Amino acid sequence: MITLASDFGSPYPAAMRGVILSRTDARLVDIAHDLPRGDVRTAAFWLAQILPTFPPAVHLAVVDPGVGTDRRGIVLRAGDHALVCPDNGLSLPAARELTEEGSESNGSGDAIEAFEIDPGADGFPGTDRAGATFDGRDAFAPAAAGVHEEGVDALEGIEWLSGTEEYEDLSFPDPEIEGESARGEVLVVDGFGTAITNVAGEFVAERFGEEVAVNGTRVPAERSYAHVAPGEALVTVGGHGNVELAVNDGRGIDAFGVGIGDEVRIDR
Amino acid sequence: MITLASDFGSPYPAAMRGVILSRTDARLVDIAHDLPRGDVRTAAFWLAQILPTFPPAVHLAVVDPGVGTDRRGIVLRAGDHALVCPDNGLSLPAARELTEEGSESNGSGDAIEAFEIDPGADGFPGTDRAGATFDGRDAFAPAAAGVHEEGVDALEGIEWLSGTEEYEDLSFPDPEIEGESARGEVLVVDGFGTAITNVAGEFVAERFGEEVAVNGTRVPAERSYAHVAPGEALVTVGGHGNVELAVNDGRGIDAFGVGIGDEVRIDR
Amino acid sequence: MITLASDFGSPYPAAMRGVILSRTDARLVDIAHDLPRGDVRTAAFWLAQILPTFPPAVHLAVVDPGVGTDRRGIVLRAGDHALVCPDNGLSLPAARELTEEGSESNGSGDAIEAFEIDPGADGFPGTDRAGATFDGRDAFAPAAAGVHEEGVDALEGIEWLSGTEEYEDLSFPDPEIEGESARGEVLVVDGFGTAITNVAGEFVAERFGEEVAVNGTRVPAERSYAHVAPGEALVTVGGHGNVELAVNDGRGIDAFGVGIGDEVRIDR
Repeated sequence: MITLASDFGSPYPAAMRGVILSRTDARLVDIAHDLPRGDVRTAAFWLAQILPTFPPAVHLAVVDPGVGTDRRGIVLRAGDHALVCPDNGLSLPAARELTEEGSESNGSGDAIEAFEIDPGADGFPGTDRAGATFDGRDAFAPAAAGVHEEGVDALEGIEWLSGTEEYEDLSFPDPEIEGESARGEVLVVDGFGTAITNVAGEFVAERFGEEVAVNGTRVPAERSYAHVAPGEALVTVGGHGNVELAVNDGRGIDAFGVGIGDEVRIDR
Repeated sequence: MITLASDFGSPYPAAMRGVILSRTDARLVDIAHDLPRGDVRTAAFWLAQILPTFPPAVHLAVVDPGVGTDRRGIVLRAGDHALVCPDNGLSLPAARELTEEGSESNGSGDAIEAFEIDPGADGFPGTDRAGATFDGRDAFAPAAAGVHEEGVDALEGIEWLSGTEEYEDLSFPDPEIEGESARGEVLVVDGFGTAITNVAGEFVAERFGEEVAVNGTRVPAERSYAHVAPGEALVTVGGHGNVELAVNDGRGIDAFGVGIGDEVRIDR
Repeated sequence: MITLASDFGSPYPAAMRGVILSRTDARLVDIAHDLPRGDVRTAAFWLAQILPTFPPAVHLAVVDPGVGTDRRGIVLRAGDHALVCPDNGLSLPAARELTEEGSESNGSGDAIEAFEIDPGADGFPGTDRAGATFDGRDAFAPAAAGVHEEGVDALEGIEWLSGTEEYEDLSFPDPEIEGESARGEVLVVDGFGTAITNVAGEFVAERFGEEVAVNGTRVPAERSYAHVAPGEALVTVGGHGNVELAVNDGRGIDAFGVGIGDEVRIDR
């Protein structure tokens, strides 16, 4: 199984599908191809949410503002999964979820191992479109197909991969919790305009049915959108497990006046 | 085979794919994930149009404005198909199409049978994300995977299902036809702004090439968009088989000044 | 394998999936379903880009402004591939790529062979929805399923196909190159507002890191977007291999003041 995620929009992802299917008959499963363009951090958040729901697979992810520069491509082995992506931190939060014991995927506790991709090496199953700058199609899709064919256990034997200790990391800040007060930030905004914070859901789940203060304004904390009228703001816990600032049938970022990276102080 | 439909947008549906594929290796086929958010009626219309084109399958559909409340989840058996969804009427029009003799799918005439899902029962193949409110991932996707594994014929033996006679229904109003006059309504609006009515296509198909009156204004009735110039309004029969109010390369709802639920009177 | 491309938006493509899967268990792969509505030329460009990345397959493509008129449906055999589409030129550039020696797909040099579809002939695996006008579901999807079942080598034996020498062609104009000056045009605009020209990438690739003049204005020619600041215009070579007029994190068509069909003169 190979999953595919990118910020390519349409129809470019289909070229990755074609290149992969010309090299392997793996099952293909789309994660999303409308990830915010060039936004590595938001993509990393979603990959960490979604990839642990999957059985062992090769996960191809391309959000790559550095395409055409000398940034490397890497393969990360995380338990029984492999993640193929540019070396910009994109898959690190997901890789940690896939390996950490007690995480969503009940990882084995194995360490993450990294391998650098050399698309110029002998045996690399690349395309013949060297003139263009579409590494999703010409480097990452072939690499994902190759890793799938060889097997996640056999990365050491692939001649166009070489083990590396150095790669870009990316992690999300932890919130500060002091008594009844949490100081966190907006990590990402979803397609409906809901602001997803880094504060763990438990912090407000205990107050469902009551009010909490968000940046000084009191707002109902509810188990789901359906508990407030359309157009009304609420604090709730999203499917990702974090506190989110939302509006039933509306845009939380407008109602709360926040965007990505903004501080969020919650007093319960 | 499991089909997936939702109003989740992106990238949330991928979490349902992952959860399912961790529980079964069924083929997955997307219906749509950009159904209008929280609009059970419009989603029900499209499911009734599309699901009968499929061979026997498990159909997972989640448009669920009541998520987080005590609304139940149900499985409907309709002939050789199973429909897994919240108990809000979402899949009832499709279930009727799948069972009624003489319907699009040439159903067997079997009655629809309903089963309530108990995600807290022993053996329910749920996730361990109980704190969040994402029933698509944590209740309906596991239920669809479980139904697929056990088989549509074996729902009675599934310990987390119990037969029920009571469930929410949803049906579309019939138009009134008197001689050469039909009084119907706009059922749904598609993504191109075309108003789809509840009047059966035959009512205007006999007048293709002539004009009919829509709410008092004369408009050409044509077999297809290509019979009028770009920007011109027409009355035609959509792929769904119903009369639709359209504009070639434009938005029918603007030209006809109608929206969902509005009365449409057609005099031929 | 059957690939699917259309301008149907959502959820109509799912009806084609259902119809196909009721007739064959072929693997389905989406190309795109948000191709610009009714724009045969742009769709033809993308099909020619993408289909050659695929292994032998049946390619169903429906962008069909003439639906409901007497335009024919055709099947083109191009090497080991079959293309099923309306007879409006949609698949001709792709078919040439799939057959020409030295093309992206390293075609065999075989000639393109065309067959007319007769949906009224005996044995046509059509639906029973004759009243509607949804040829994607009722004619092209069944034809693609039928071709897949019979095999691309066996088109001569299919009773609802008949060989034809006449079909609509579609091709893209060649640019005029004189010394250091190229006079081309904008072929298509992608979803990010980048203007893709008919000038081969080599013409500017030799000047990467320098400036060239586009319609008289000097602009940097760069290997990739990352070489200019966000908001800055550049000339580069897209994944398609052609010169494109772009803005890093912006819309090239606005910065360069061009649209589809407009002349582009590049002096290097």
